[in-house]
Order: sequence, then C-alpha cells, then structure tokens
Amino acid sequence: MKIVVDAFGGDNAPNAIIEGTIMAMSQNPEIEIIFTGIKDVIEKELEKYTYDKSKVEIVDAPEIITCEEKPTVAIKKKKESSLVKALQIVADKKADCFVSAGSTGAVLAGATLIVRRIKGVKRPALAPIIPTVKDDTKVLLIDCGANVDCKPQYLQQFAVMGSAYMKYVEHTENPRVGLINNGAEEEKGNDLTKTTYQLLKNSTPVNFVGNCEAREINSGDFDVVVCDGFVGNVALKLMEGVAGMLMSMLKSELKANVKTMVGAKLSMGAFKNLKKKMDYTEYGGAPLLGIDGGIIKAHGSSNAKAFAAAINQAYMFTKGNIVEVIREAIIDMEPVED
Amino acid sequence: MKIVVDAFGGDNAPNAIIEGTIMAMSQNPEIEIIFTGIKDVIEKELEKYTYDKSKVEIVDAPEIITCEEKPTVAIKKKKESSLVKALQIVADKKADCFVSAGSTGAVLAGATLIVRRIKGVKRPALAPIIPTVKDDTKVLLIDCGANVDCKPQYLQQFAVMGSAYMKYVEHTENPRVGLINNGAEEEKGNDLTKTTYQLLKNSTPVNFVGNCEAREINSGDFDVVVCDGFVGNVALKLMEGVAGMLMSMLKSELKANVKTMVGAKLSMGAFKNLKKKMDYTEYGGAPLLGIDGGIIKAHGSSNAKAFAAAINQAYMFTKGNIVEVIREAIIDMEPVED
Repeated sequence: MKIVVDAFGGDNAPNAIIEGTIMAMSQNPEIEIIFTGIKDVIEKELEKYTYDKSKVEIVDAPEIITCEEKPTVAIKKKKESSLVKALQIVADKKADCFVSAGSTGAVLAGATLIVRRIKGVKRPALAPIIPTVKDDTKVLLIDCGANVDCKPQYLQQFAVMGSAYMKYVEHTENPRVGLINNGAEEEKGNDLTKTTYQLLKNSTPVNFVGNCEAREINSGDFDVVVCDGFVGNVALKLMEGVAGMLMSMLKSELKANVKTMVGAKLSMGAFKNLKKKMDYTEYGGAPLLGIDGGIIKAHGSSNAKAFAAAINQAYMFTKGNIVEVIREAIIDMEPVED
Repeated sequence: MKIVVDAFGGDNAPNAIIEGTIMAMSQNPEIEIIFTGIKDVIEKELEKYTYDKSKVEIVDAPEIITCEEKPTVAIKKKKESSLVKALQIVADKKADCFVSAGSTGAVLAGATLIVRRIKGVKRPALAPIIPTVKDDTKVLLIDCGANVDCKPQYLQQFAVMGSAYMKYVEHTENPRVGLINNGAEEEKGNDLTKTTYQLLKNSTPVNFVGNCEAREINSGDFDVVVCDGFVGNVALKLMEGVAGMLMSMLKSELKANVKTMVGAKLSMGAFKNLKKKMDYTEYGGAPLLGIDGGIIKAHGSSNAKAFAAAINQAYMFTKGNIVEVIREAIIDMEPVED
C-alpha cells in the first residue's frame, strides 16, 4: 500500500508532517510512503528517525503552494510543487492515497483537475468526521465547503458516498443518514432541501432517517449528515467557534476567585479529557469523496500526532477500497445532469 | 405605551406569561398591557398579583393556536385565538407592540397576514440577539428562519433593518454589519452571498465591515450579522446544540472521580455564571423586523423572567420608534422586485 505525502503542506511543514508520517509507519508496517517536496530538506529531516528505509521514497518538488495563492491558478502554474507532483502520482496510479495538510482550496482544485472525479460523480465533497455526545460515536458531515451551490442530486450523491465511507472505513453497519434542515418535519426546508428529502426518501440505496436539525448533528443519532458546502462550512466553523467561546468564557469565570481557582485545579483532569474528545488531532483529516483516488485533507495546523492520524485514515481508506465502492454505487444510481 | 400580550402562547402559558408581564410592569411604569386569551383564566391568575389595574385590559379570546398546527391555516381559521386577536389590535393601531411565546410559524404568518409589512419591505426577518465573548456585547443575527430562500436584495434590507434595531434599541453607535460567508475574502461565497457582498459594499447606508465566518459570529467584532433564514436557523440551533453537548460532556467528565467531583463543587460559581451568560432568559425575545408594528417573539419555553425580558424589549422597541426608522430607511433604498 502506497501513500503519497505532500511534505510541504500545512502550518508545521515539513517537520511535523515527516514526524507524523514516521509515527504512522511504525504503527502500520504495511504502509509505504512517497514524500514530495524539497528533497534535501526531507532527507535531512528523515535523518532524525529510525524507520524502514526500503519503504520510503522521495520525489523532488522544489515549489510550494501557499494558502494565499488562488488555488486553480497555483495548480496550473506550479507544476513542480509538492502538491501537484503528489497528486500526479495518484493520477498515474503509482500511489493509492494522497495526504496533505496544505491549502484546502488547492487540494480540492488539484484533486479535481489532476486526479479527476469518478465517472458519474458530479461534485466531489469534503467530509470531516466529527465527535458526538455518545462515546466512540462519530458523524461524517458532507459537504463541508467544496460545493457552495448545490443541486438536490449532488446531495443525493453525497449521501451515497458518505455512507460508503462510514460503512467501510468506520465499520458502521447501515449508516443512518440525516439531511440538515430547518425543522424535523418532511415539509420543512428551502427549495434545495425539500427536493433532496424526496430524492433521499424515494430512490437512493441509503438508510435515510429524515431531517437533522442543526442542534442534532452531534447527537450521535446520525452517522452521515448531508448538506450543501456553504451550510457545512457554517456548521463546522460554528462548532469550533462556540466550543472556543465557551471554553474561554469558562476559563475567565474560573479565575474569578480563589475557591473557583482551587476547584478548577482539582477538576483539571475532566477539562483535559473534554479537550481530548474535542481535539481534531484524534480524528485525522477529512476525506475528499468522489475523486478517482484516495484524498485525505489533514487539518492545516496539524501537529505530528494529528498528521499520523491522517495517515492512518489514508490506510483505512485504502483498505476499505472506498474508491471502488463509490464507483459501483454511482453506477447503480440514475445519471445526474449538470 | 400599549403592549399587547398573547397570554396563551408558549409552553408555560398563561401562568409564566402573566407573571412575567407583571414583573416588567413593576420595572417600567410607562407600560400599559392588553392581554388576549381566555378572560376568566387571566382574571383569576391576575388575582395573585398587586399591580396598577388601570393599566391592564383583557380582550377575551377563547381559542388557542398550538405549535402542532399549520401556521397559515390556523391563522385563517382561528379568528378568536389569543394570537390572532392580539395581532389584530396591533393592526388596528390600538397597541404599539405585540409579544408572544407561541408558535414561531404562527407569529410569522400572523404578523405578515394581519399586521402586514412596512411598504417596500420584501421579507420581514426574525432577528434574535445573542451573546458574544465580549462582556456586555451582543450581536443581532438576521434572518433566523422566516425566509429560507432569499434574494440578495432581501439580505440588503435585513442589514438595514438590523442596523436600525441595534442603533435605536441597543444604542450601538454605527453598528458593524457582517455577512455570514464561507471565507473572509471578498470573492468567497455562494451565488447569494457574492451578490449580496457587492450590494452591501456599494449601495446601502449601513456600516458594512465585510464577511463574517461562522466562527466569528460570537466574536464581538460584529453588531449585526446577516444571512438567509436557512443558514440563520442552522447557526442558531447549532449554538444551542454545541453548548449543550459541551456542558453535558463536561458534566460526565467531572463525575469521573472524587477529585474532579470536589473540584466541580468548588468551581460551581463559575459554571453558574457561564450558564447565566448563555441563558436566553437574560436576552428577551427576537424582534420580527419589517412588520408595520412591533412584534417580539419570546422563546417558546420562556419562564416568567424570560418573558419579562421580552416585555422590556417591546418597551425599548417602541421607545426606539423602530417601525418608523425602518420605514424611512426603506424609502431611501432602491425599490426591490419580488
């Protein structure tokens, strides 16, 4: 199993990327790695670690794409970048899966332009896995930003692709699919969700359990939650924002007097456990589903541990044969017009 | 100043509604109240309290509209309901403002059908006031569910109406308006927000400060945040959901061992303060802006304190002359087509 790693994507690249990759390799001896990036730098960094050298290859890529660049322009201009070279390796079927902590826009644009979509997939979708209130239960939120204007048929495909992922990577039996909507009742919704509801209810081979109000996303009652990329982006960023706000408000309240400060010291273990549960580094990255190859987008600020989780996710993605599962599922659906 | 109160709307009606109204009257001697609802029951409930009887009137309304009914149907059929009768009083200019904790859908439909829109306003919008991380700073989120499919011109009007409210009710100088979007940059967005951005930037008499990513809604950097009602509904419900999830996760972590339990006991004051800050009962209700009369929708589960806050909000709304301010502002804007 070959995983190609964009060694120069992300806030902590290349150090944390390389460290995390080596961590994942030690956990999964099956993994073989191709790093793309500035060869000298990668080689020097690798000298720090002990690992099976026969399982690591480096492809020199002197250019770097940053988050400030316009994605489509950067992809077309910087042919020698670590990101473009890595995606080309997946397109050439010389690697099963690609992992990057680089610019989300560039990963989306690059994957679509270089690796390309699975035939019949109208829009690839970014699908992060997020925590729920129920222990060990996660939910996949699809789409989270790849497609800001959607048709009902795209959302139907998202439901199919998300279900495939949860079934074969997270081993969730018969994943429960919800549609983000402004009410629980069937007749609720905007033009998009009303039509999507009927499509999901009547024609798709997914386990559609109905509308999911936004407050229920993290309830553990859904395994896959479907929405357009604009709404998904709002939902994802709001979760970060509200969690951050509450924690900072609680912190300042705890500092209010000696009693609460002593209390906070004693309760520290609980805060740490909560932080761990909410911690993205435990959850790896977000798969980009619908591309004809494995694509895992790790968090931009990934540290070594988070990046190792993303590599392990790439391993599970490849093991689960997700690309082929989605290809079969899309063939079985009615063709979608643009 | 006359405020008409739907005494039979809400989970805790009529007891908490009447108690809260009397509380607000004792805080604001200027307020005169008209209750609508089952007269005998209201009279009996009022016997519990001491208040200026010359300032309270009861209009008998034997019917009740529930949350289970289809709003437009209920409004048309139940002419003798507390909600319809109260709205009719505002339409007849016999009261300045209406307050209800009843069905949101019925309040929206009733206000639009009975009191009607201000001339030129295309869509009235529901605009709750929510907490931010900055002490004593609140943000108005408009629209939160009245309009699930919007045109850019509607959002432009929301910005104008929301600014009027924050300026004249919350006394915010030159309210900073943000547009909920999936990125900070001008070129980001879906079809709706891209066009809205240009409208807000170029032609509206509002202090537009740019895009607001969802994680920044509660940052305190915006006074008015504009979005379509679908996105607003998602944002509002997610705030509730995430706050609830974190608190329940923290609770169960705190119960993990004796040390954290003792810590939690000592920190209790901090948790209580945080809960108070997040507590909707401190914030009153949501104004429905764009209607030709004051409309305040209190939270469905309002207790007496929350309902008193909503009555006080109605008082401030009327004092601020918001309906006339919006009327003038809309006249100054270019007419909007449907």
